[in-house]
Amino acid sequence: MSNAGDGTIGVGMVGHAFMGRVHSHAWRTVHHFFDVPLVPRLAVLGGRDLDRTKAAAAKLGWEAVETDWRALIARDDVQIVDICTPGDSHKDIALAALAAGKHVLCEKPLANSVEEAGEMAEAAAAAAANGQRSMVAFNYRRVPAIAVARRMVAEGRLGKIRHVRAQYLQDWLSDGNTPMAWRLRKEEAGSGALGDIGAHIIDATQFIVGEQLTGVSALTETFVHKRPIAGDPDGRLDDVTVDDAALFIGRFPSGALASYEATRFALGRKNSMRLEINGEKGSLAFDFESMNELSYYDGESATETAGFRRVLITEATHPYVGAWWPPGHIIGYEHTFTHEVFDFLTDVHNGTDPVPSFADGLQVQQVLGAVEASAGNDSRWTPVS
Amino acid sequence: MSNAGDGTIGVGMVGHAFMGRVHSHAWRTVHHFFDVPLVPRLAVLGGRDLDRTKAAAAKLGWEAVETDWRALIARDDVQIVDICTPGDSHKDIALAALAAGKHVLCEKPLANSVEEAGEMAEAAAAAAANGQRSMVAFNYRRVPAIAVARRMVAEGRLGKIRHVRAQYLQDWLSDGNTPMAWRLRKEEAGSGALGDIGAHIIDATQFIVGEQLTGVSALTETFVHKRPIAGDPDGRLDDVTVDDAALFIGRFPSGALASYEATRFALGRKNSMRLEINGEKGSLAFDFESMNELSYYDGESATETAGFRRVLITEATHPYVGAWWPPGHIIGYEHTFTHEVFDFLTDVHNGTDPVPSFADGLQVQQVLGAVEASAGNDSRWTPVS
Amino acid sequence: MSNAGDGTIGVGMVGHAFMGRVHSHAWRTVHHFFDVPLVPRLAVLGGRDLDRTKAAAAKLGWEAVETDWRALIARDDVQIVDICTPGDSHKDIALAALAAGKHVLCEKPLANSVEEAGEMAEAAAAAAANGQRSMVAFNYRRVPAIAVARRMVAEGRLGKIRHVRAQYLQDWLSDGNTPMAWRLRKEEAGSGALGDIGAHIIDATQFIVGEQLTGVSALTETFVHKRPIAGDPDGRLDDVTVDDAALFIGRFPSGALASYEATRFALGRKNSMRLEINGEKGSLAFDFESMNELSYYDGESATETAGFRRVLITEATHPYVGAWWPPGHIIGYEHTFTHEVFDFLTDVHNGTDPVPSFADGLQVQQVLGAVEASAGNDSRWTPVS
Amino acid sequence: MSNAGDGTIGVGMVGHAFMGRVHSHAWRTVHHFFDVPLVPRLAVLGGRDLDRTKAAAAKLGWEAVETDWRALIARDDVQIVDICTPGDSHKDIALAALAAGKHVLCEKPLANSVEEAGEMAEAAAAAAANGQRSMVAFNYRRVPAIAVARRMVAEGRLGKIRHVRAQYLQDWLSDGNTPMAWRLRKEEAGSGALGDIGAHIIDATQFIVGEQLTGVSALTETFVHKRPIAGDPDGRLDDVTVDDAALFIGRFPSGALASYEATRFALGRKNSMRLEINGEKGSLAFDFESMNELSYYDGESATETAGFRRVLITEATHPYVGAWWPPGHIIGYEHTFTHEVFDFLTDVHNGTDPVPSFADGLQVQQVLGAVEASAGNDSRWTPVS
Repeated sequence: MSNAGDGTIGVGMVGHAFMGRVHSHAWRTVHHFFDVPLVPRLAVLGGRDLDRTKAAAAKLGWEAVETDWRALIARDDVQIVDICTPGDSHKDIALAALAAGKHVLCEKPLANSVEEAGEMAEAAAAAAANGQRSMVAFNYRRVPAIAVARRMVAEGRLGKIRHVRAQYLQDWLSDGNTPMAWRLRKEEAGSGALGDIGAHIIDATQFIVGEQLTGVSALTETFVHKRPIAGDPDGRLDDVTVDDAALFIGRFPSGALASYEATRFALGRKNSMRLEINGEKGSLAFDFESMNELSYYDGESATETAGFRRVLITEATHPYVGAWWPPGHIIGYEHTFTHEVFDFLTDVHNGTDPVPSFADGLQVQQVLGAVEASAGNDSRWTPVS
Repeated sequence: MSNAGDGTIGVGMVGHAFMGRVHSHAWRTVHHFFDVPLVPRLAVLGGRDLDRTKAAAAKLGWEAVETDWRALIARDDVQIVDICTPGDSHKDIALAALAAGKHVLCEKPLANSVEEAGEMAEAAAAAAANGQRSMVAFNYRRVPAIAVARRMVAEGRLGKIRHVRAQYLQDWLSDGNTPMAWRLRKEEAGSGALGDIGAHIIDATQFIVGEQLTGVSALTETFVHKRPIAGDPDGRLDDVTVDDAALFIGRFPSGALASYEATRFALGRKNSMRLEINGEKGSLAFDFESMNELSYYDGESATETAGFRRVLITEATHPYVGAWWPPGHIIGYEHTFTHEVFDFLTDVHNGTDPVPSFADGLQVQQVLGAVEASAGNDSRWTPVS
Repeated sequence: MSNAGDGTIGVGMVGHAFMGRVHSHAWRTVHHFFDVPLVPRLAVLGGRDLDRTKAAAAKLGWEAVETDWRALIARDDVQIVDICTPGDSHKDIALAALAAGKHVLCEKPLANSVEEAGEMAEAAAAAAANGQRSMVAFNYRRVPAIAVARRMVAEGRLGKIRHVRAQYLQDWLSDGNTPMAWRLRKEEAGSGALGDIGAHIIDATQFIVGEQLTGVSALTETFVHKRPIAGDPDGRLDDVTVDDAALFIGRFPSGALASYEATRFALGRKNSMRLEINGEKGSLAFDFESMNELSYYDGESATETAGFRRVLITEATHPYVGAWWPPGHIIGYEHTFTHEVFDFLTDVHNGTDPVPSFADGLQVQQVLGAVEASAGNDSRWTPVS
Repeated sequence: MSNAGDGTIGVGMVGHAFMGRVHSHAWRTVHHFFDVPLVPRLAVLGGRDLDRTKAAAAKLGWEAVETDWRALIARDDVQIVDICTPGDSHKDIALAALAAGKHVLCEKPLANSVEEAGEMAEAAAAAAANGQRSMVAFNYRRVPAIAVARRMVAEGRLGKIRHVRAQYLQDWLSDGNTPMAWRLRKEEAGSGALGDIGAHIIDATQFIVGEQLTGVSALTETFVHKRPIAGDPDGRLDDVTVDDAALFIGRFPSGALASYEATRFALGRKNSMRLEINGEKGSLAFDFESMNELSYYDGESATETAGFRRVLITEATHPYVGAWWPPGHIIGYEHTFTHEVFDFLTDVHNGTDPVPSFADGLQVQQVLGAVEASAGNDSRWTPVS
C-alpha cells in the first residue's frame, strides 16, 4: 500500500492556493536533490472549481484533477493525501483519507478546534497501527537553522533553558483598507494571527527546547473589526471575526519562562518569526526573514571574545543542507517543504512515525485553546491540557 | 534658594557606587558642553564609611564629605540633594531633603513600594509650591534616540499605536555562582530585575508613546534561590529574595497591546534594552547596546523601497546631540546623565517642573506593584492604580 | 527553429557538476512559476563518463545522455545548448553549437582569454542575424535585489555616481590543505579568484551603474603555491597556477571611482559578494549572503530620519518576485538561474537579444585581461579595451 | 621637568576648535577614571583671537589664555604642549615646544609633508634623549576594540595575515553646495580625505597587524572643484585644492594584500571607518560607527557553529574598559582621547616612549606621500620610504 510498486508513490493534493503552490514545488523537486526511497508522482489535484483546478494542475504539474475531494481520496493512483485547504475542512478530509487507507499530510494548524484535532489524532493513531503515516505540516521544523537549534539544545549545548522568546510579526493587515479574506473568518480559519502564525512559533519553540508549555496567560485583540469586501461594487464591509494579534506568557516544565506574540499589525515586519532561547550555557536567536542564519552565543567562550555569532546555516554538515549548494549560497522558504516531504516519504517507506504527528498537532491546538480561554477569562493562568 | 547667588549651585550627593560615579561625571561635565543657567558645584559627597567616602570624593572631584546624610542635607552649600543610594533609603533622604528646602534628584526606581513612592510624590508636590524641584532619574529618557522616538510619536509619524514590545535583557546572574549582592535582597532593592531594569522599560515606553499602562498580567520567577556570599571563608550561601525575571503583558488606553520582559538571565545579552513600537503609519526599534541608533520604518514610503532604516542619532538636529561631536561620532552611556542634569538645572533655574516627576515615579511604582500583584494572583489581569 | 513546434523547446546541457545541477533545477522549474512562451524539455545531458552522466541524468531529470558534446549538439531534439563546463571548453562548444544553428547559454566567464571571448562574440553576432540567441550566464544580474539596484540607478535615484565598491569574498582555499581542483589550474580555469568571482562583481557593478570601466590598476597574488592532490596515496602536491586573490582600482567614464577585490582567502566570508554604490542623491549596498535584501540610503530624506534601510526584496513589485511567495518569504540562490532561463526563453521566443550578450561577456573578459596586465606591469594604469 | 612637583602637570593647548574641545574633555576627565601618576592642569589655552579664546577657555575649563603660541610655550606653568591646530602649523609649534624642553602631543597627521614630518621626528628623537616625550595623536589606537584587535593579532589568534581591507567613509562633502573649509585647502590641510581620514586607517591597520606597508598603487580624485565661501554676500566660490577621495592598494611584508579607501563622498556613511583583517586562523571586522563592537571569526571553531561574532568591547578585561561602566554600557568617541592622554601622562611620568611616536607619524606621512606620488604617476607601484 505504501507505494505503486514501481518506486513511485502517488500524491493527491487538495487545494491549490499558496500552500498548494509550495507543496507542488516540493513534490516535483524532492527526488532531484534528496535520495528518496519513493519518488512522488503528482497524480491528482483537487479543487472546487473545475476550470481553475485544471489551470492550476497544468501550471503546477499535476496529471489529473478532481473537483470532489472524496473522489480524489478514492482513486487508486493516490497513496498520499496532502491537505492544503483552510482549516475548516481538515478534519473531514483527513478522516476520510485515513478511512480509505491513505497516508495523510495535513497543513497546520491541524484543525479549527481542540475537539476536531482530537478526533484527527485518534484516527491517525488507529491508522498508524495499519501502516498509514500522518504528519502535520509544521514546515518550520525543517528550516535547517531551526533543526540545528533543536540539535544544539538536545546536545546540552545551551544547558538548562531559562527563557524562550518568540514573536511572529507580519504587517499585511496593518492597513485598515486591506480587504476581507477567509483567514479573517472564524468559521473557516478557526482563529486569526493566533492559529495561523502563533501556531508556528508554539510548535517551533516546543520542538527546539524539547518540552511542552504547561500553561499560559494571554491577551488577544482585534484592531479592525470590519474590512472591505474585495471587488464589491457597493463598497460593503464584512466582519472580521478572528483575532488580529495574540500575546501570551507561559512556562515550561523545566522552569523556563516563555513569551509569545503573533500579530499581523507589526508595520514593517513582513515575515519576522523571531525566536530567542537563553540557556545557562548558551543562547540562540533566529529570524525567519534571514532564515539561513542562526545567531549563537557560546557561554563557554572566553569573556574577552564572547559574542553572538551569525552562523550561516549553509554547511554540508547542517541538516538538509548537504543536498543543496556550497557554503554561503542560501536556500529559500519553499525548501522547508522540500525537506518536509523528504522526511515524510522516508517515514512512509520505512514505516516509521513522522513528526510532527497529529498528536503533536493536537497539543499545539491545546495551547491555542488555552490562549483563547485565558484571553476570555481575565488573562488568568490556564493550564494546557 | 535656587542657587548660591554667583551663578553656581551646590550639589550634595549621597552614595558613591556605580550611580555615584556616573552622576559625578555628569555634574563635572555638563557646563562644558551645555549652556546651563547654573554651574553645578560638587560640594559634598555623602557615604557611610569615612575613609571610603574621602577616597571617592578625591577620585570623583567632590570638595567635602559627610558620613551622615542628614548632615549633608543640612549644609548651606547644598542646594540640590542627589540620591544615589539603594531604594530602601530613598524615601527618608528625599523627605528630609524636601523638608529642608532642597531640590531633589532621586535615582530610580523612586522607592521600594507604592506606599513609599506615594509619600514622596506628595511631599514633592507640596515642595513644588515652595519652588523646590524634584526629579526621578529615569535617565533613559535622555538617550537622544529615545527622545527622538518620543518626538516622532508625538508628531503623529507613527499614527495610532498598535504594539509596544519591550525587553531589558542582561545576563550577569546567569551563572549560579555569581555572588550575592544588595540588589538581590528585597529589603534593600524592593524587587529584582523588575524594579531595577523593568522600571526602565516601563518608563521609557510610556514616555515614548505618551500613555500609561491600564493593566497587566504577569509572571515572575527566581531561578537561583541561594548565592554565595562574596569572600565568605566558609562558603556560606545567602537567600535571594527578589525576582530574577519578570514577564508581563498589558494594554494602553489607546488600545495598543504591550509586552515586557526584564531578566538578568539572558545569556549573551549584556545590556540589551530593546524597544519596538508599531504604529499604523510607522514603526521604531531601539537597542541600548547600540544606543546611538534608532531603527525606523516609514509606512508611507513606496513599497519598493520601504524598510527599517538605521538612523544614526548623531545629527546636530537631534535632541542633546548638538552639544557633542560631528555626525557618526557616537556618545556613551554616561551622557544620558549629563543630559539629565542639564535639564534638571534648567528647570531649577527656570522654576519649571522637571520630568519625570516624583508623580511619574509613583506611577511606574504602581505598574511594578500591579505586576507583582498579578504574578501572585494566578497572572490575573490587574489594573494599574 | 526556435522550438519544437509544440510549445516546448529542447535543451541539451553539457556538464553536470555544480552548475549543471543548478541549471537543471532552473530548466525543470521555470514554467511552474513563470509564464514562459516555451516550456523547456530536458532533452539531453552531456558528460564525459557514460555511467556518471547516466546517473546524473536520472537524478537531475534529463531524458537522454551523450558522452560527446558534438553528438549532443547534432541532435534534432536540442534547440538550446547550455554550456556548464570549465572555461577551457566554452569556445569550442559554443562555436560548434552556433555553427549548428542552436541557441547558446554559456556559463561565465565567457572564455579563458580575451581572444577566445572575441571569437565567441563574433560568432554570436553572426548567428544573431540568423535568429539564434546567445547569452552568457552572469546569473547575479537576476538576483532581484541587483535588478532593483540597476533600476534605481537608471531612474536617477542615486544621482551622479561617485563610488563603486565591490568585494567578492570566499574562504574555501584559506586552509592550505584544501586539495587541488580544476579551478586552480590556469589551463582549465583561465584564472583563479579573478575570473571565477571577480568576473561576477565586474559584471554586476557595470550592470548596476550602466557604465563600463575605463581602466584599472591591479595587484594579484597566489598565497598557496602547492596543494595536495585529493586522494593521492603518496600525498603528492600539485601546482596552483592561478591567482588566489585579485585587487584592483578603476574609474568609470562618469568620473566614479571603483574598487574591487576577489579572494578565496577571506576567512569566515563564505560567499560574501558585497557591493556598495554611492551617488550624489542616494547609496545602495548589497551582500549576497543576504541576497533578498538591499540596503538603501535616500539622500533626500530629512536628515533627522535618514539612514540605510534594509529593504526586503520580497514584494510582488520587485523584478521576478511576483512569481514567488508573499512578502518576507525569501528565495534562494538557485532561482537566479530560474530567472535567467525565464528571460532567455522569452528572448528566444520573441527574437530579442538576450543580455548579457557574448559581447558583454567579451567586455568583462577585457577587464579581466587589463587586471592581469596591470598586475604584471607594476600595477600601472591599464585601459580596458 | 616632567611635572609641577605637586603631582600635577601643566598643559598648554593650542587650538580650540573640534580637536580642542575633545582634548579639553580628556584632560579634564582622565584622572577621575584612571589612576594617572600626574593630574593634568588645564593651564593655558592658545588661540589667535583673544575674545574667542577667552570664551573657549571659560567654556572648556582652561585657567589662562595666550594669543601667541610662542608665549604659551614659554610659560613656566606649561610642561605639556598639546597641538590642536591645522597641519600647516604643526611643525613650527612642535619644534619650538621641543626646543623649549616641553613634552608634545600633536594632532594627526603629523605634518603636511614628509619633509616637515621628518624634521619633527628628528627633533622628537633628540628631545627624547633629554627626557621629553612626544606623541602623535592617532587616537583610534585607543578605541578599545582596536586595541583588542591588535592584541589578538599579536597573540597569533589570526595566524598569518592574508588581507587587510580598510575604508574611511564620510559624506559631508557629498553635497556640492557644502561651503569651503580650511580642510579643503592644500596649504593648510596638506591633503584632503587622504591625510584627514586616510591617515587614520593607515595608522590603525598598521598598528593592528604590526607591520608597515611596503608600497602602494593609488588613485585620487577631486569631485567638486569649487565651493561657495560661507557667508559670502556675493555668492563667490573658492577653489578646492585637495583630494575628495583616495583609493589605494598595497602590500605588507608578510605577503598580505591591502586595500584602502578614504572619501567624504560616500553618501549615508557618516563616520564609517571600516576595517577587516583576514588571517589564516581568524578574521576581524570593525566599524567606527559601532565603536564598542568588534566582529570576530574564529577559524578554529567547529564548522557547524562558526560565524562572525559581535563582541561587545565593554568587559572589564578589555583594554581601558575597566575604568568605565558595566558590560553593555557603551562609551563614546571622546574617550579615545581620554585613553590617549592617560597613556601619554603615564609615559611622561615613567620616562617611557609613547606610541605612536613622531617617527610613527613620519612613516604614515611617507605612506601618504607614496599614495600621492603613485596617483600622479599613472597609479604605478610606489614603494613607501
